[in-house]
Amino acid sequence: MGETLQIIRERRSVRSYKPDMVPEELIRKVTEAGTWAPSGMGRQPAIILAVTNRELRDRLSRMNAEIMGTDTDPFYGAPVVLVVLADKNVPTYLYDGTLVMENLMLAAQDLGLGSCWIHRAKEEFESAEGKEILRSLGIEGDYEGIGHCVLGYPDKEPKQAAERKASYVYFAK
Amino acid sequence: MGETLQIIRERRSVRSYKPDMVPEELIRKVTEAGTWAPSGMGRQPAIILAVTNRELRDRLSRMNAEIMGTDTDPFYGAPVVLVVLADKNVPTYLYDGTLVMENLMLAAQDLGLGSCWIHRAKEEFESAEGKEILRSLGIEGDYEGIGHCVLGYPDKEPKQAAERKASYVYFAK
Repeated sequence: MGETLQIIRERRSVRSYKPDMVPEELIRKVTEAGTWAPSGMGRQPAIILAVTNRELRDRLSRMNAEIMGTDTDPFYGAPVVLVVLADKNVPTYLYDGTLVMENLMLAAQDLGLGSCWIHRAKEEFESAEGKEILRSLGIEGDYEGIGHCVLGYPDKEPKQAAERKASYVYFAK
Repeated sequence: MGETLQIIRERRSVRSYKPDMVPEELIRKVTEAGTWAPSGMGRQPAIILAVTNRELRDRLSRMNAEIMGTDTDPFYGAPVVLVVLADKNVPTYLYDGTLVMENLMLAAQDLGLGSCWIHRAKEEFESAEGKEILRSLGIEGDYEGIGHCVLGYPDKEPKQAAERKASYVYFAK
């Protein structure tokens, strides 16, 4: 008891990674944690696309950078990209997909891995190129990109956590 | 290491609660875990309204039931309602608020408490009555309701977890 509170407290967004690949066994533990997120009416509208293929990882990075208008690697050198997408026909899809994302990031922390949420998955998989990538992987359906959880071994100590804002929690007793 | 994976795996949505109040110290641990969720650019656009006041808890329950079109208690008898809201002016507000929700539910599990996400917070706090409640608590701003995390001691064993769908995780190696 209490260890999860500590993991939650200590998780940081890691913005610099070693190139070393994460063993598949650990990636599977992280993605499994994602699947246990709750979802509205238990519909499980999310999917997780675990990308370790270098070519695809670099292609997503390039697409993401173009959306952002830069030519850097928005994935900070991380060798693994877990893309969460969710079925837009389910009314709670955006919430449900996001809960999966938090489980991924906490599971990473629990396993000694670094992670970071990278946005613009929505725009990535709204594009013709994004849709073609999904089709080529046999993923059919009306999926919206929720986020990327990049994963790897931190290259340096992440920054200390910013203070929480003073007005975060209100009590009505 | 590994304990958080287990907490994630064992968390269930609890749909029946004892009336016993949760000690404030535990509620504060849960809400603190919520505040440590990541947010886009670290903006912290979410707030948590921790309701233990019986009158307000019952009022939210009644409002929620009306939106749903029932006269039952959508909070399943839970004595504590943690409402997460987020500032609509922040582009990532909906994602950010939802990450807070997952931390609340996992922290509850870690502390031996039951929890459940209850929807319709959006409609509740779009109403004139909802806005008046926020104002009366000194909460000013353009907040959208993200969800309720109800909290308490489970009244019976929750149902076993539904199986995860077969097509949840795809690998691109």
